Amino acid sequence: MEELVGLREGSSGKPVILRELWGPCPRLRRNIHRALEWLKKRLFRVGEDWYFLMALGVLMALISYAMNFAMGSVVRAHKWLYREIGDGHLLRYLSWAVYPVALLSFSSGFSQSITPSSGGSGIPEVKTILSGVILEDYLDIKNFGAKVVGLSCTLATGSTIFLGKLGPFVHLSVIIAAYLGRMRTKAIGESENKTKEMEMLAAGAAVGVATVFAAPISGVLFSIEVMSSHFSVWDYWRGFFAATCGAFMFRLLAVFNSEQETITAIYKTSFPVDIPFDLPEIFFFVALGAICGILSCGYIYCQRTFLFFVKANGFTSKLLATSKPLYSALAALVLASITYPPGVGRFMASRLSMSEHLETLFDNNSWALMTKNSSPPWLAEPDPQNLWWEWCHPQWTVFGTLVFFLVMKFWMLILATTIPIPAGYFMPIFIYGAAIGRLLGEALSVAFPEGIVAGGEVNAIMPGAYALAGAAAFSGAVTHTVSTALLAFEMTGQIVHALPVLMAVLAANAITQSLQPSFYDGTIIVKKLPYLPWIRGRKIGSYPVTVDHFMNCTLPTLAKDMPLKEVIKVVISTEVTQYPLVETTESQILVGMVKRTHLVQALRTKSTSWAPGQQPCLQDILARDCPTQPVTLQLSPETSLHEVHNLFELLNLQLLFVTSRGRAVGSVSWAELKKAISTLTNPPTPK
Amino acid sequence: MEELVGLREGSSGKPVILRELWGPCPRLRRNIHRALEWLKKRLFRVGEDWYFLMALGVLMALISYAMNFAMGSVVRAHKWLYREIGDGHLLRYLSWAVYPVALLSFSSGFSQSITPSSGGSGIPEVKTILSGVILEDYLDIKNFGAKVVGLSCTLATGSTIFLGKLGPFVHLSVIIAAYLGRMRTKAIGESENKTKEMEMLAAGAAVGVATVFAAPISGVLFSIEVMSSHFSVWDYWRGFFAATCGAFMFRLLAVFNSEQETITAIYKTSFPVDIPFDLPEIFFFVALGAICGILSCGYIYCQRTFLFFVKANGFTSKLLATSKPLYSALAALVLASITYPPGVGRFMASRLSMSEHLETLFDNNSWALMTKNSSPPWLAEPDPQNLWWEWCHPQWTVFGTLVFFLVMKFWMLILATTIPIPAGYFMPIFIYGAAIGRLLGEALSVAFPEGIVAGGEVNAIMPGAYALAGAAAFSGAVTHTVSTALLAFEMTGQIVHALPVLMAVLAANAITQSLQPSFYDGTIIVKKLPYLPWIRGRKIGSYPVTVDHFMNCTLPTLAKDMPLKEVIKVVISTEVTQYPLVETTESQILVGMVKRTHLVQALRTKSTSWAPGQQPCLQDILARDCPTQPVTLQLSPETSLHEVHNLFELLNLQLLFVTSRGRAVGSVSWAELKKAISTLTNPPTPK
Repeated sequence: MEELVGLREGSSGKPVILRELWGPCPRLRRNIHRALEWLKKRLFRVGEDWYFLMALGVLMALISYAMNFAMGSVVRAHKWLYREIGDGHLLRYLSWAVYPVALLSFSSGFSQSITPSSGGSGIPEVKTILSGVILEDYLDIKNFGAKVVGLSCTLATGSTIFLGKLGPFVHLSVIIAAYLGRMRTKAIGESENKTKEMEMLAAGAAVGVATVFAAPISGVLFSIEVMSSHFSVWDYWRGFFAATCGAFMFRLLAVFNSEQETITAIYKTSFPVDIPFDLPEIFFFVALGAICGILSCGYIYCQRTFLFFVKANGFTSKLLATSKPLYSALAALVLASITYPPGVGRFMASRLSMSEHLETLFDNNSWALMTKNSSPPWLAEPDPQNLWWEWCHPQWTVFGTLVFFLVMKFWMLILATTIPIPAGYFMPIFIYGAAIGRLLGEALSVAFPEGIVAGGEVNAIMPGAYALAGAAAFSGAVTHTVSTALLAFEMTGQIVHALPVLMAVLAANAITQSLQPSFYDGTIIVKKLPYLPWIRGRKIGSYPVTVDHFMNCTLPTLAKDMPLKEVIKVVISTEVTQYPLVETTESQILVGMVKRTHLVQALRTKSTSWAPGQQPCLQDILARDCPTQPVTLQLSPETSLHEVHNLFELLNLQLLFVTSRGRAVGSVSWAELKKAISTLTNPPTPK
Repeated sequence: MEELVGLREGSSGKPVILRELWGPCPRLRRNIHRALEWLKKRLFRVGEDWYFLMALGVLMALISYAMNFAMGSVVRAHKWLYREIGDGHLLRYLSWAVYPVALLSFSSGFSQSITPSSGGSGIPEVKTILSGVILEDYLDIKNFGAKVVGLSCTLATGSTIFLGKLGPFVHLSVIIAAYLGRMRTKAIGESENKTKEMEMLAAGAAVGVATVFAAPISGVLFSIEVMSSHFSVWDYWRGFFAATCGAFMFRLLAVFNSEQETITAIYKTSFPVDIPFDLPEIFFFVALGAICGILSCGYIYCQRTFLFFVKANGFTSKLLATSKPLYSALAALVLASITYPPGVGRFMASRLSMSEHLETLFDNNSWALMTKNSSPPWLAEPDPQNLWWEWCHPQWTVFGTLVFFLVMKFWMLILATTIPIPAGYFMPIFIYGAAIGRLLGEALSVAFPEGIVAGGEVNAIMPGAYALAGAAAFSGAVTHTVSTALLAFEMTGQIVHALPVLMAVLAANAITQSLQPSFYDGTIIVKKLPYLPWIRGRKIGSYPVTVDHFMNCTLPTLAKDMPLKEVIKVVISTEVTQYPLVETTESQILVGMVKRTHLVQALRTKSTSWAPGQQPCLQDILARDCPTQPVTLQLSPETSLHEVHNLFELLNLQLLFVTSRGRAVGSVSWAELKKAISTLTNPPTPK
């Protein structure tokens, strides 16, 4: 039947399958058929890219959920062991402490044995990669395995070690994105393209955040703020799409697993929506932001200093260099001993998991008012209905435990960040901020038990709202972002405190950004990763600075008429990756550039094939053996520092040549730029 | 006392006021004093910029609130007149129709008489300005007055004409930002700087959105998505700050004016937070997104076609050219006649104001289920407690009125957009989308009266949630943005539907972005404003295209050794704004550029002062009379189209010179780029 074809009257000679002619409404059916064909083509043409983004989101959501699920079981097993082991203090202590010690030393040993770069958060490195610097092996799939296993162990220690999963997840997601990007390039036979690769990595970063907190919008914004100084709306849309897929999948799994009835926020709050706060409370929210800003400056400063100390100190640096697992075990022992619940841990709610910490801190009621007359009992294990009882102590009251929690966690967190394991530092900071806010909120609720606006209806002060603002402000200040406000809303599923939280975050950011680099920038500085600093404050003094003030003038150029001997001399004496190629030694007119690797190869193969009397010059090997690249963009000595900075930031450049009247006169790389900017910021004292 | 100074022991010779020495704790007091001094300096140094941003936000909030307040009174007066005028149909009709006719013709006549560019939304023009094109007079303060008065009249017509205030407000805000920016430059004696100006304008756009909807976060994001293809995180922070100040002030005024008890969202909803929707409903949300996407394509297409038609048609184009007020009056008469409540307006809830439209559409309850057995009465005027009764009709039911509303508003809105008055087109689109969503929601609530998940608790379907998703999806699709989802959350103060709404918006955007340009881009095309098109779909065919394929090779260069006569010939025969300056006519080595205006001036003053026999050349007038600019960035013929496109987009460039081995060989402006891109998209058919 299929083979029976004919020509329709008046048709343009295209054969028509007869069945098509015989059926009812042939024209309509043909049109529908054509429309479907068009749709199919359309979907696959436009879609190719989007399918990979969707795959990225879904994959990361699966990994994130599986990790949460597995680690939840391990934590429950630990709790069970601790509960069932009997009343002997030694046994209980051992069951509490040995577990994290073992896990952390394994995590550190395993991940470091596979690749030494798997430790830490990973966000600073991803930031460096997204700014165009190539970090070898950092996006390797080997790193993925090390990080997944290491992170799982870290998370299994629960709130004892008090570390999260955001940073490593961003890193994992970027690795998967790089992998998928390569797959896509192969699948559709496209030539490799750096822009497209970067687009995929940027989407990966957004997905990483979104699949940890099920917060697609703030996931995209947070990753933008943390990672880059410029962003394209195109990348932002792609990030949105991938992040939404990821967040949807992540929450869908929770529904399928009967944890929840439908898709909701992960730390649902229940603030009243009609009058969530009295107007004068705005002042306290801004004050809270300022407090968080000041504390975050202290935190960032101490953390950086301690990191330097650990690296500089003889004992610790030796320990970290030779036996990382031992260092991890020691640190874990200290942290676990302090959080041991019958001991000091009693005063810092250490029996709660990290998500329980958040849930309790976001609680609506004022604990101080509720425990005014009778303090809750100290149960053998936390009461699931009244988890907040863990924060109360008959003598210390809520204030005592919160202050103790803040004081102890301050240095414990700093200690934890020095342990060489894959771990996220965002979640602990978020909880720390929530505790700051809660403390202020509780104090206010005691000071104004009837609410602030006297007369009329009583709107009790909700300490939970302050905890929310504190969490957003402190984490925003530490990471130099404002999208943590949105993250707080997406995590709690309520946006009634939009303005107060935003104002707190802005106040905190204003203080921290003018005094300290962000947590991630600090790590970049300590780790000495290549990065381009901002021109801070955009001081006017920086405007007249032009390229000829700071360019690298000792540029080794290769002239086409250079004898090969001299070329070899230049290649041996310098270490740059690419050389500017000029017309003649005399004219120095820039015509292109040569990659060092190509040149070395060409020299190796050719250096033996010339007769001794001959004087071969560079031109002779250029044509066939050593490809030259065109110089697509040239600077002038008159280009301003700002323009160059913009160019480097926007186009993720590594090196630009400077020409004057066609002559190659210098080059600018990020090293020169960095020096120029630091000279501007800290002018050298005239001697 | 103040004059009594002395030298403290061991001090470095600096005189100390004696009172300072005598008071208690001199050292402590001095330290505090110093700290305060430092803080003051710090605040004023870092702050200078921020103060202007804050002023911008507060100022726009004041204007926005004052306009709302004044126009609210005018609308109330109109309502009172309509109510009190008696039962005669003619009188009632006249009182209903004359009012908007008079207002619109005044609005159109007044604003057009001051400046013809004050009509329309203003967003397309602001977008063009932000992309680096200078539109003369568009940011003039005269425009501000015309726009404020015109917009006030437009808004005073209420829901009859059905236009909003977003677009003009963005324009107003950008004007104020430009003005404040100039003030700042003058105040601190900085030299003018284009980057800084642009930063201020970008913040202005964000403030414009934020002060209309009291939505700071989505204000920033929406303005970014609509305005630019790239943005810097620095601008984003500044936008956040200014927008938060604006939104806070805007809501604060509402509290001070006793409209509200505390700061809350403007269209507060009360969806249940525990189980806002059943999981299978996600499917319907995505389907709603797809429907909105398809409808928005139709809307954009019809709107653009009608706009072309109005410009091309003899009668309307003549009317628009000669007597704009008449055209406005005629259009207003048509719109007012149709919305006359005792007439057809009865079936489209025309007695509600635009914000009441939104409030009712976001209502929790299912109207179809509530009016199943008894339909609400038709009152003489809307019942403030049950505004939604306006949407119900005994015979037509809710579905009838919603469908009628959608059908009628479709062409009424298109007609309204052709009226040459300052007006925003976002709000009507938002309401239109809400009506689409409501229709689907009502249908679903009738189809599944017990909720979708059978068994267990009954979670009734909430049509209001669909209205929310529809509003976000339709407005997002028409404007090609995804941040309308966030806008919907900020406007309603609830974020429980985060994922479904986001997915609907993404679905709608996927359809519209692949089929139609955005509403604003469409207007740019119709108005023939200069703009740089995207390289759509990033097809692989565009990668090998390099500058030498499309650059303008017929570049008029000026050589230093050119006789002045020839220079004059070049200047007369060409119209470019700047000429490349080359070393000699023969070598064509690029050394800088000369502005046409400078050159013309120099030629005018000098052309008479030379002796007739002398053969002066360009070099002679360059030194003193005609300043040359350095060329800071040069392209090569090998630069790819993508690179150039990126450069132009990122750096807001207008023109770049192309050099090869130092020789000026061509130039690229956005006109060349646009042609190259359109050639790629629609390859010329070979003849």
